[in-house]
Amino acid sequence: MQIDQHRIAACNEPLTAAHQRRLQFLRQEIPHTEDIIAKLIAFQVAIPSWALGTGGTRFGRFPGWGEPRSLEEKLEDIGLLHALNRGSGAVSLHIPWDIPSNAAHIRAVASQLGLQFDAMNSNTFQDQPGQEHSYKFGSLAHTDKYTRQQAIAHNLEVIQYGRDLGSKALTIWLSDGSCFPGQLNFRRAFDNALESFGEIYQGLPDDWKLFIEYKAFEPNFYSTTVGDWGQSLLYTSKLGPKAFTLVDLGHHLPNANIEQIVALLLREGKLGGFHFNDSKYGDDDLTVGAIRPYQLFLIFNELIEGMDARHMQHATDMGWMIDASHNVKDPLEDLLQSVEAIRIAYAQALLVDRDQLTAAQNNNDAVLAQEILQHAFRTDVRPLLAEARLRAGGALDPLAAFRQEKVREQLVRERGKTAIATGL
Amino acid sequence: MQIDQHRIAACNEPLTAAHQRRLQFLRQEIPHTEDIIAKLIAFQVAIPSWALGTGGTRFGRFPGWGEPRSLEEKLEDIGLLHALNRGSGAVSLHIPWDIPSNAAHIRAVASQLGLQFDAMNSNTFQDQPGQEHSYKFGSLAHTDKYTRQQAIAHNLEVIQYGRDLGSKALTIWLSDGSCFPGQLNFRRAFDNALESFGEIYQGLPDDWKLFIEYKAFEPNFYSTTVGDWGQSLLYTSKLGPKAFTLVDLGHHLPNANIEQIVALLLREGKLGGFHFNDSKYGDDDLTVGAIRPYQLFLIFNELIEGMDARHMQHATDMGWMIDASHNVKDPLEDLLQSVEAIRIAYAQALLVDRDQLTAAQNNNDAVLAQEILQHAFRTDVRPLLAEARLRAGGALDPLAAFRQEKVREQLVRERGKTAIATGL
Amino acid sequence: MQIDQHRIAACNEPLTAAHQRRLQFLRQEIPHTEDIIAKLIAFQVAIPSWALGTGGTRFGRFPGWGEPRSLEEKLEDIGLLHALNRGSGAVSLHIPWDIPSNAAHIRAVASQLGLQFDAMNSNTFQDQPGQEHSYKFGSLAHTDKYTRQQAIAHNLEVIQYGRDLGSKALTIWLSDGSCFPGQLNFRRAFDNALESFGEIYQGLPDDWKLFIEYKAFEPNFYSTTVGDWGQSLLYTSKLGPKAFTLVDLGHHLPNANIEQIVALLLREGKLGGFHFNDSKYGDDDLTVGAIRPYQLFLIFNELIEGMDARHMQHATDMGWMIDASHNVKDPLEDLLQSVEAIRIAYAQALLVDRDQLTAAQNNNDAVLAQEILQHAFRTDVRPLLAEARLRAGGALDPLAAFRQEKVREQLVRERGKTAIATGL
Amino acid sequence: MQIDQHRIAACNEPLTAAHQRRLQFLRQEIPHTEDIIAKLIAFQVAIPSWALGTGGTRFGRFPGWGEPRSLEEKLEDIGLLHALNRGSGAVSLHIPWDIPSNAAHIRAVASQLGLQFDAMNSNTFQDQPGQEHSYKFGSLAHTDKYTRQQAIAHNLEVIQYGRDLGSKALTIWLSDGSCFPGQLNFRRAFDNALESFGEIYQGLPDDWKLFIEYKAFEPNFYSTTVGDWGQSLLYTSKLGPKAFTLVDLGHHLPNANIEQIVALLLREGKLGGFHFNDSKYGDDDLTVGAIRPYQLFLIFNELIEGMDARHMQHATDMGWMIDASHNVKDPLEDLLQSVEAIRIAYAQALLVDRDQLTAAQNNNDAVLAQEILQHAFRTDVRPLLAEARLRAGGALDPLAAFRQEKVREQLVRERGKTAIATGL
Repeated sequence: MQIDQHRIAACNEPLTAAHQRRLQFLRQEIPHTEDIIAKLIAFQVAIPSWALGTGGTRFGRFPGWGEPRSLEEKLEDIGLLHALNRGSGAVSLHIPWDIPSNAAHIRAVASQLGLQFDAMNSNTFQDQPGQEHSYKFGSLAHTDKYTRQQAIAHNLEVIQYGRDLGSKALTIWLSDGSCFPGQLNFRRAFDNALESFGEIYQGLPDDWKLFIEYKAFEPNFYSTTVGDWGQSLLYTSKLGPKAFTLVDLGHHLPNANIEQIVALLLREGKLGGFHFNDSKYGDDDLTVGAIRPYQLFLIFNELIEGMDARHMQHATDMGWMIDASHNVKDPLEDLLQSVEAIRIAYAQALLVDRDQLTAAQNNNDAVLAQEILQHAFRTDVRPLLAEARLRAGGALDPLAAFRQEKVREQLVRERGKTAIATGL
Repeated sequence: MQIDQHRIAACNEPLTAAHQRRLQFLRQEIPHTEDIIAKLIAFQVAIPSWALGTGGTRFGRFPGWGEPRSLEEKLEDIGLLHALNRGSGAVSLHIPWDIPSNAAHIRAVASQLGLQFDAMNSNTFQDQPGQEHSYKFGSLAHTDKYTRQQAIAHNLEVIQYGRDLGSKALTIWLSDGSCFPGQLNFRRAFDNALESFGEIYQGLPDDWKLFIEYKAFEPNFYSTTVGDWGQSLLYTSKLGPKAFTLVDLGHHLPNANIEQIVALLLREGKLGGFHFNDSKYGDDDLTVGAIRPYQLFLIFNELIEGMDARHMQHATDMGWMIDASHNVKDPLEDLLQSVEAIRIAYAQALLVDRDQLTAAQNNNDAVLAQEILQHAFRTDVRPLLAEARLRAGGALDPLAAFRQEKVREQLVRERGKTAIATGL
Repeated sequence: MQIDQHRIAACNEPLTAAHQRRLQFLRQEIPHTEDIIAKLIAFQVAIPSWALGTGGTRFGRFPGWGEPRSLEEKLEDIGLLHALNRGSGAVSLHIPWDIPSNAAHIRAVASQLGLQFDAMNSNTFQDQPGQEHSYKFGSLAHTDKYTRQQAIAHNLEVIQYGRDLGSKALTIWLSDGSCFPGQLNFRRAFDNALESFGEIYQGLPDDWKLFIEYKAFEPNFYSTTVGDWGQSLLYTSKLGPKAFTLVDLGHHLPNANIEQIVALLLREGKLGGFHFNDSKYGDDDLTVGAIRPYQLFLIFNELIEGMDARHMQHATDMGWMIDASHNVKDPLEDLLQSVEAIRIAYAQALLVDRDQLTAAQNNNDAVLAQEILQHAFRTDVRPLLAEARLRAGGALDPLAAFRQEKVREQLVRERGKTAIATGL
Repeated sequence: MQIDQHRIAACNEPLTAAHQRRLQFLRQEIPHTEDIIAKLIAFQVAIPSWALGTGGTRFGRFPGWGEPRSLEEKLEDIGLLHALNRGSGAVSLHIPWDIPSNAAHIRAVASQLGLQFDAMNSNTFQDQPGQEHSYKFGSLAHTDKYTRQQAIAHNLEVIQYGRDLGSKALTIWLSDGSCFPGQLNFRRAFDNALESFGEIYQGLPDDWKLFIEYKAFEPNFYSTTVGDWGQSLLYTSKLGPKAFTLVDLGHHLPNANIEQIVALLLREGKLGGFHFNDSKYGDDDLTVGAIRPYQLFLIFNELIEGMDARHMQHATDMGWMIDASHNVKDPLEDLLQSVEAIRIAYAQALLVDRDQLTAAQNNNDAVLAQEILQHAFRTDVRPLLAEARLRAGGALDPLAAFRQEKVREQLVRERGKTAIATGL
């Protein structure tokens, strides 16, 4: 299904007066609303293809209804989101869950929906039917050379799929590690991973980026071979200028200061992309902003500070992606909430008066610095987001429109109750 | 010093037009603003007497200037806060740091400043000069009976000081515990603590409450004898109806769900009081709301839900206290920020549509439930706080007024640069 | 397959001389070796039926070979373990994964292998085919009464299965909770769970125990309705004398002092059983003792102290069970390592000189108390375990015998490579 | 005081027969006992001068008796330890707590006691009387250039003190950071710290090492400017070949895999030194091995593996230091326990059969790898330590000798009860 423009307009109509009142109020409060609105219109977050189905845990999975049955239907889902919020105009594919057997067709479908192809994702954390070497004990860092080569070949294949679609980046989340002390030799594992990354890097087109994601634990529960930002940075520094570190918000030890990590990676010119989600305990993959919205704001505060200092373009010089699971929510509704939370944090961070903040920092005035940040965070910026959506042809209230237009019911009618998307 | 009412009015004057515009806007957004404003006016947070000086860590302390040199000057400080924000009309004293040698005089000073005496605090985590038995290895749970008796006697003395001042509650933070496995017998330590609490409870006036605070670790680094809410609840359940658990936000293990603890203690009728602060790692005692403002909101959401369900009065049926340290901020400015953060969370929680939330919960509609909570949290309620202050005679912007009126400079002139308050 | 007694003897023969030398040495070091050996012979750990297959994570599962295909084969596996280590003479079944369609037959098989039936386990964290109400949003604490009743009925059915087999306990791990703030009302969830537990308790035979397990998080990532020992104790205290708390080592927040929890639950007479495993990050379900063997020893130190103080029998008055997953190890080898680690910790704790320890504690001599505990922990007690096994007819080195006798290879021949056990 | 050699012999005499029996037993179990004993004799751990007095927390300090009153008495204390355990033949001094006003004299005293001077420690986390610029808001990373220069000058002065004494390393623990979001700019703080480190590095003699310590939190509770190993490695990599990272066991986030960090730093050739202690919650500074002895063993396992791979000498190519606090133990007894725990872990790690382990790792045999490590850890190596001490002229049981010889009582007689050492 697609949502007709006039249906969105119909949803917006009764909300317009209140929206204008709120926007008008904000214009009195904030001097540069037009600048913020323009940046919001340009700012797009990629939806991962695996997030369109219901997620699960090792204890079970409770599927929803009407999940996409093919890559085309996944694009259709993202197209629905983008039609509503005009902020999710990109997709991040996963191989082998989303092999584009007809790339030209897939590109055409995406183009018609206004979608770009963001980073491609490889998978060497699962075995596929007919696979010669198992990844039970690792892949790119495996002790066995042939297993490593198989995993390298898979990544090179993913790059090829991505080239066919117009993607410009490869994300490697390497789950290799160990569950028990003694199981592996940390140094040799590092060496093996580095060598494998190097071969993939050799196969990377000149205009591509390689993102090395890190994660503290899970699915390995003693050590992970790319376990923290320091390890990822070691790899990406040794690999070369096309290699960057990717930060996933849920991949840290308890209490980590993620915003400081972001700032330091930007200082080193090595921050390449982001996987947004939220968590309370581990890699919980909850809706973005559902648990720690202030941390999200602080991260965006550092992103803007650091990107501006390096003259990077917010909209294009960073890979903005969601990586969440949806165990008890409708995936599309969850994604609407996640995109909204990201954009709120972005808009709030744009509100921060940087000159004032720098002055407060230079004076070691922690009270004033906090006031400046919290003033931005406490400001209700939602009317700016709504206005950005409105101008781009989206819905003033995307979630309400989703429910009002009975999108999920329509998808169930089209796809059936038992359709289950590929993914975790 | 005291701040004249007309000085506050002078500070307010240039801010009034913008305030009225914002308030007017909120009135269009929120149906029951008057109800919220009334509740805010009634809601008072107690300032601990030890929070008026600069705090420190075990590695050092960097004192500020013009700290209060006596109990009278501590009340003066709180009076200044209360004059500005009209929300800190109570004080929580600590013995032996604040022994009221002339109780009648102290009551008169407090009364003149509009201050009540909230819970009294005892101290058996430090040795005092001339003390017969040392608390190095514990106090109320010490293996030695005479040491326990000394600690019991101290608590009974604190109650007497409190009676003289009109307080109605005693808070016991028992730091007893152990630094090494084997150092103590957990069961005997529990028995000793229970027996000691029991003797103090016997000496408690009928109209008093006994608050048993818990803490996961520090200053003992292996075990704490009142280590978590479960242990505190065991004690307070065995003691009787005047005994309650007190929650300090910084006293939990990483990732604890404090709001659930609050809800369950309220269900059991055993939540008595709160120590507000914020933290990222341990008992960091940072400004309230400086790190996790959404968690603070979620806690208030449970407080209101649970207190309303038990027909408790928000303003009077719970001990609301701050317990923070101020290592790099001016203590009074820090306290103004803390009180503001508490009141924002309270106001936001009052915004939550409880009927809608219950309906969403009954439908297991996690998406809608989150929308309801986050709508309240994202609303900028600061104009309601300002209006409550204005009606009560306070400042529209207390922190700005504090700086504009050069309060600290005046206190330094009166007290000198080297004045250091008692406390940690 | 079964392992012939003479095959075990053949494995032992070349190891006997060295064993006798080590045992002789220990007899000079430890006065009461015979007492410890006798206790070790009596001490049996139950194997959970779901631990006989390869576990997995939400990211994938890499099955092993020759896993048991039926309940009979699961008993066969445990019989093999028990034949080797003479310390795993009990099984803990899970319904619906192990429905004993012919109870008499199953009892006979178990009896022939020398196995008892320890606690039964229910499952309301997954949906079963044909089930009327889904557990997606909870079971015993669900907002819907009919869903709760279905989950209650399931537990009563599990009791019936257990009665048929001679079990005397039911373990309920209730995974109900929420993934998002606002999703549920904590108080109503508690009330619902309590009411459901009560109905199950009503159906419990007089000579049975009900174990209520707690867990901090997973599969719910915001709150769990039985989230910590305090909550479990609230339920079991309200339910009555047949209800007990069950401790799983992996179900705590970071840095929790589990041994103190054990001591306090024993003080309250409410500790009923144990799920052993080890972990570094969350509920990692690693081999017991693989990460924190000293913590395991400290827990046994408290178990012995507390059980002796209550005149409880080590072997019979507590439910000793393993609950681990085996993602990268052969499940049977992993279980042999787990049982060995448990028995080492038990033997070491039996070495602790309790009179000396009490004296050191009474003197607050933390140095000596640590010496006493660490002397026990540093003593190499493995010869005592070997001797206990030898006397009971087991192997001096169970793991070596397992490999030498090519047990897994034999099982693969019998069952095939692709056999996969029921479970997670 | 000093302990006469014949007093130690007298303490040893009644223990000798049992020691010989145990040693003889171990010789049958372990092929290369002589090699291990030789390495133990060579292995020396430096005692920090500030660890000779009773430590405290921010909540208080309970001093012991007879603490050293001068640098000479601190050396005397360490001399006593070394006489007993022959494993603490080095001291790590702290400026300004231990300014050697007469370096030649101090060298002579140390030499007479058989003590070397290990790394010097600077202090810019406290203000000293008469200091021009305060370190309240930082030192080497301060926003103010003059404050940075003052802190640089202090470090250069510490180097000079160290040269006079024969030290060859400077340890910088930089506590700079922030308590609140917004307080500082992460990038500028990094730049400032790097520039300051660079100036100190310029002043470092050619045969010296610069150790950059990292710490996750405390005394700053939001961010630390050298917060983790990744940040320290960034600094030391940029500084040059004389700069190394120093690992303190208590300076990590919860659940960090320290042994992996050790292995990777060794791989990069950037691990320079160690601060040993133990902890359960944060930087608890407890006795080494008191909480997680297996982790300590795993760390030594990586140290030996990595140092051997780089052909580093265990005894001389790494700075081995203790950094602990002693709140409830006699500092000297605590240090005897710490040194013993370190040496046990070292000896156990020397037991690991590296060829077997490598083979198991290459086969991904996690079961066997664990067996190999745990066999070493479960072996009671204490007789090897005793033999190494005996041969070097020390006590078979240092702690028993310390008590038997009434060392503390003698020190109290000499120094008085109220002597308090400089330090925290």
